[in-house]
Amino acid sequence: MTPKGVAILGSTGSIGTTALRVLARQRERFVVTALTANTNSALLREQEKEFLPSYVGLVCGDDELHAGWGGGSDVLVEAATREDTSIVLNAVVGAAGLDATLAALRAGKRVALANKETLVVAGALAEQACREGGGEIVPVDSEHSAILQCIGTRPRSEVRRIILTASGGPFRGWSEQQLADATLEDALRHPTWTMGRKITIDSATLANKALEVIEAHFLFGLDYDQIDVVVHPQSIVHSFVEFIDGSVVAQMSVPSMELPVLYALTHPERASDDGVGGFDPVANSPLTFEPVAMSQFPALGLGIAAGERGGAAPAIYNAANEQAVALFLAGRIKFGDIPKAIESALERLSDLPSGNREELLEADASARKHVMELF
Amino acid sequence: MTPKGVAILGSTGSIGTTALRVLARQRERFVVTALTANTNSALLREQEKEFLPSYVGLVCGDDELHAGWGGGSDVLVEAATREDTSIVLNAVVGAAGLDATLAALRAGKRVALANKETLVVAGALAEQACREGGGEIVPVDSEHSAILQCIGTRPRSEVRRIILTASGGPFRGWSEQQLADATLEDALRHPTWTMGRKITIDSATLANKALEVIEAHFLFGLDYDQIDVVVHPQSIVHSFVEFIDGSVVAQMSVPSMELPVLYALTHPERASDDGVGGFDPVANSPLTFEPVAMSQFPALGLGIAAGERGGAAPAIYNAANEQAVALFLAGRIKFGDIPKAIESALERLSDLPSGNREELLEADASARKHVMELF
Repeated sequence: MTPKGVAILGSTGSIGTTALRVLARQRERFVVTALTANTNSALLREQEKEFLPSYVGLVCGDDELHAGWGGGSDVLVEAATREDTSIVLNAVVGAAGLDATLAALRAGKRVALANKETLVVAGALAEQACREGGGEIVPVDSEHSAILQCIGTRPRSEVRRIILTASGGPFRGWSEQQLADATLEDALRHPTWTMGRKITIDSATLANKALEVIEAHFLFGLDYDQIDVVVHPQSIVHSFVEFIDGSVVAQMSVPSMELPVLYALTHPERASDDGVGGFDPVANSPLTFEPVAMSQFPALGLGIAAGERGGAAPAIYNAANEQAVALFLAGRIKFGDIPKAIESALERLSDLPSGNREELLEADASARKHVMELF
Repeated sequence: MTPKGVAILGSTGSIGTTALRVLARQRERFVVTALTANTNSALLREQEKEFLPSYVGLVCGDDELHAGWGGGSDVLVEAATREDTSIVLNAVVGAAGLDATLAALRAGKRVALANKETLVVAGALAEQACREGGGEIVPVDSEHSAILQCIGTRPRSEVRRIILTASGGPFRGWSEQQLADATLEDALRHPTWTMGRKITIDSATLANKALEVIEAHFLFGLDYDQIDVVVHPQSIVHSFVEFIDGSVVAQMSVPSMELPVLYALTHPERASDDGVGGFDPVANSPLTFEPVAMSQFPALGLGIAAGERGGAAPAIYNAANEQAVALFLAGRIKFGDIPKAIESALERLSDLPSGNREELLEADASARKHVMELF
């Protein structure tokens, strides 16, 4: 078969480097056609030498452009819409990834989406772009990949509900009093996954799980009452799908992003790959499940409510959370202030218009400003 | 859609009555076209009145034939090959179900197979019948149904291995000394499933799991080294499939045969059905897995070795086990004598010819005779 062209937006980050490890093993199926990075030109140059893509782009740092590289914020859309590219892995962090996703979908590409913000902030726009251009979104998040793997090519009408698993984060089982005194170091100590700082804090507040619920709503066309969350401290079962006949199918593996990245490229097929360690049920026993302590983690309920409300609310939720997490990481607010900031922004701003990209970005900016003014 | 015709062989047994409960809820998709029973004419008559099949047959008991019923051992093949029937649920116990399965496959039917003996005794003949007539076998065993559900319509080449779960039976964790003294009452006390006496003893010796390994070999076209067994005392995870990319998918539900029966009828689709209780991961936590104590349960290793040897060996294994279990149920031999009888029969008779149905039935008879003469 002819290898499919893959563009990687954010190739020097955690997901991007994981993807290149996977692609180095899958050269018969895939060829790297484009790489973009935000600032890490040295690593980008190394990747270029190894994978020989036809396009390389660096978003920031004009001084460090090598010969033939594209520069500036346009490189994302450029890399995402090339003729030689079938699949765009969008691993850009934050709202900066939105335009590239929409452009790729309009150009009929598969977008392997590691950029949650696209669907949370602008799920309706992404759906519209898919309809217009014939593109499709395939998730890279481990939970959503698990659900897609369980569904396979079955029609979505066979799904009764899904259950997203959550590790519970570092504060699982903490009392309200302990949570009030939680430090930055405590919050960054994730029990099962090694990730960036922002997503690690989101895992501690469970805001990450709220974003995933909203993402699942758009990815799988499910109502919010069809999406449940359960705490699973071992992070082995990556999610469950309950079908209309009462059967439940779950996907498991040791925690590793290589598998979800690979599956996003090959779905609905699977490719032979030995990058993921074999699964041993005995070594991973017991698998335990607990209800989510919703009152301890108000960010989760706020996020689901924002998703149900729709309109600008998910964008407000996401932006307020991002801003509050930045303040917490900077040592300027307490852990318990994060959900308070989100709640305040949602109360004040949820009715903002959200009909197009510009209005959504304005809502985003308003939420960030609101949070900055709170403290 | 036009409802598909379903014939049920063994409609008054445990699987048969379960199937009719399911079919009573699925009258838009399926219509019962034929029912057969071995001896229970009273229940068969009730079922006839409720489901109005076009054919009813009673194997034994000429005195109890109602008007229009077929009688004698031919009714199984007759019910299995009718024009108005698309799916034959074979829930006949033992080798008596073999001819009906082969006839249905040659007639191009789907056989929903609850009769393990067909594949264990005559897997190669069944494969040949599928090729000749275009029929297909879909499993009803919960473990094999789980595997089929996890695979869905994916090509079998994407499967790296499967892991069958075993409850471990009533003797899980017993010492050799305790096992030597195990009584019939002990052996009949299955921890999670309520089943017939023969299969309950097979679950105590793990012979049942050996039969399932052989069944899986034929159903899914897997080598024996691609089939593992793990003990899972809760009987919630019904089996695992590990794919070639390292991903593992498992099917779960509370122990109930309604779901595997329904799925065997609808595969690869799923039908909306509320007969199976909702799955609650928290209520079913923890899920635990243990290695099989192979030395405590020699019947398992003997069965897998018989499968690997092929030829007449699986038929010898099955027949020797059936005969030994009958003797144990009659109080004539000890629990530990069951694997000894199997081992002796395999050593003596594995080289018997197995080229056709008659030779296989002869091997079966020789094994039973051998076991009777041992004690």
